Amino acid sequence: MEQMQTVTVEALERRVETILLAHGMSAPNAQAVAHVIVAGERDHCKSHGLYRLEGCLKVLAAGKASGVSVPVVQDAGGAIVEVDAGGGFAPASFNAGKAALVARARDYGLAALVIRDCLHFSALWHDVEALAEEGLAGLSMCPSYAFVAPSGGKVPLFGTNPFAFGFPRKGAHPYVVDFATSVAARGEIELHRRAGTPIPEGWAIDTEGRPTTDPDAALAGAMLPFGGHKGSAIATMIELLAGAMLGEFMSREALDFMGTGDLLPRHGALILAFDPARFAARSGRDPIAEAERLLGAIEDQGARLPSQRRFKARAQALAEGIALTAAELALLERLSRPDALR
Amino acid sequence: MEQMQTVTVEALERRVETILLAHGMSAPNAQAVAHVIVAGERDHCKSHGLYRLEGCLKVLAAGKASGVSVPVVQDAGGAIVEVDAGGGFAPASFNAGKAALVARARDYGLAALVIRDCLHFSALWHDVEALAEEGLAGLSMCPSYAFVAPSGGKVPLFGTNPFAFGFPRKGAHPYVVDFATSVAARGEIELHRRAGTPIPEGWAIDTEGRPTTDPDAALAGAMLPFGGHKGSAIATMIELLAGAMLGEFMSREALDFMGTGDLLPRHGALILAFDPARFAARSGRDPIAEAERLLGAIEDQGARLPSQRRFKARAQALAEGIALTAAELALLERLSRPDALR
Repeated sequence: MEQMQTVTVEALERRVETILLAHGMSAPNAQAVAHVIVAGERDHCKSHGLYRLEGCLKVLAAGKASGVSVPVVQDAGGAIVEVDAGGGFAPASFNAGKAALVARARDYGLAALVIRDCLHFSALWHDVEALAEEGLAGLSMCPSYAFVAPSGGKVPLFGTNPFAFGFPRKGAHPYVVDFATSVAARGEIELHRRAGTPIPEGWAIDTEGRPTTDPDAALAGAMLPFGGHKGSAIATMIELLAGAMLGEFMSREALDFMGTGDLLPRHGALILAFDPARFAARSGRDPIAEAERLLGAIEDQGARLPSQRRFKARAQALAEGIALTAAELALLERLSRPDALR
Repeated sequence: MEQMQTVTVEALERRVETILLAHGMSAPNAQAVAHVIVAGERDHCKSHGLYRLEGCLKVLAAGKASGVSVPVVQDAGGAIVEVDAGGGFAPASFNAGKAALVARARDYGLAALVIRDCLHFSALWHDVEALAEEGLAGLSMCPSYAFVAPSGGKVPLFGTNPFAFGFPRKGAHPYVVDFATSVAARGEIELHRRAGTPIPEGWAIDTEGRPTTDPDAALAGAMLPFGGHKGSAIATMIELLAGAMLGEFMSREALDFMGTGDLLPRHGALILAFDPARFAARSGRDPIAEAERLLGAIEDQGARLPSQRRFKARAQALAEGIALTAAELALLERLSRPDALR
């Protein structure tokens, strides 16, 4: 049997923070990045857990990101709050801008947080869940690397462009959904390639735009957006709103800038916050109680709300700690060395 | 060969307006409703063209909508502009609130238009196209009637919940997309039922939640959201943002209130407007030119942008008029009689 070691969430955060500091990251950045990485691990959201740590170190080692940048908040008092991440990781910038975003949303009813020139490597549910804890509905989106072709086309232009939405609930975890607008993640195709197994139909096309189940042909060609032309339109919307509209990179420019899809992408991010209390005020209704009628009715028929598995894993991790495998322990050990990636 | 008659867009608008007036609608409402109905016909968007006229008259005849309500704009100077439609049709309310919405979006960077207690029977592209003409990006969404089950469930809770997005372009029609978040429209299932043909797989489930291709079983059961659990999440988001958050009906309450799915639904609507010039200002980039790099690259690979067919039909209708079939002419003739629906 594999050797496991159970650590508390706090201990794992400190461990990851120490590793990031050893690789030259500043304390506020290390703390913010460690928090979101361990939050992913805590929620058993493995694709955004410890797995991401090496990616953070790699992009730092490549000199393509800053571990010491100080987020600069631009808050002119309007409904747009901007944070310049200066080529740093998004979590510290989100933390820096959050209070102003929340205040503006409460003042005006809705507001936007624009993060410029960041590496938004963490799961987007983190952003909208933080807003829901403040009683706000939230939308979060960003481009990534151009690996996804538009519906009816063959040249990759969109990223896997994640989209997240959150809505507060009373006495329960918020409604939180977070998904890629591609059918599958690129990493899943890579796993099929390594295993020598075909990918399911509908995931990708080859360089000629023909449907393919060959992982190599898919990686050379393009991935497909979910939901046909409707999903393709949502991916387009994310490029336009969180890329072009902000004057930040869209997914193709992000790929050109980095010169590789193997490092974390650098681009902007858009986070919208809505205050249901403000929106509903004139109706005389309680928007959170209204929402519950829908969410309760979804649960009552046995359909699962998104994120429930994550919240369950979280409760367990907080109560019993996180069990790390021997491979994970070895990874942490290896990454602890400042020359780990050289 | 069928007898056709070609009329100008303006003449058809006057004709439809006259019919609405004959059924007791006030002049501003008749004008606004005739405009969007004929805009649908002009763009060869038949599902939202003359076809809708009888539905408008039916809901008036049933006493379930007001043809004379005067939209009341509530503009407290924040980023939320509200219009109370008073049980009237949305177009007059959109017209009444549009100037304030545009002004607020330019002042704050983004703003929301909330329409309360309306019949948003027109296509949503109308809203976002009007905003794009002002140089603004727009999002529009509303609930409808609960005919769609959540992914993994079987009880209908969502409407076909339309979603539209628009982004301005320079020297070209804007990027405009508008789609139902259900796989298919309810009317399409009804057409299969009448024709006695099966519906495609993936459109619907029966009352037990089992996939069905039988139109009767589908109409008794539930329609499905597009794109599996991701589309289901977007349908949920629309219920929450454009229903619960506003303190207006969600799709199930809309159905309960009307007591039938045969009349146009009554609920609220949410329209968001974003000013790209404000969002991009600090970047020093031109957001419209940036967007063009993406939209041009989609077109260059032969993939069609949404709405292009509609814009082409429009150009033809404006140049050559709209050809009405004998059946359409007979319909207009029949509906012209004030007792047409009695």
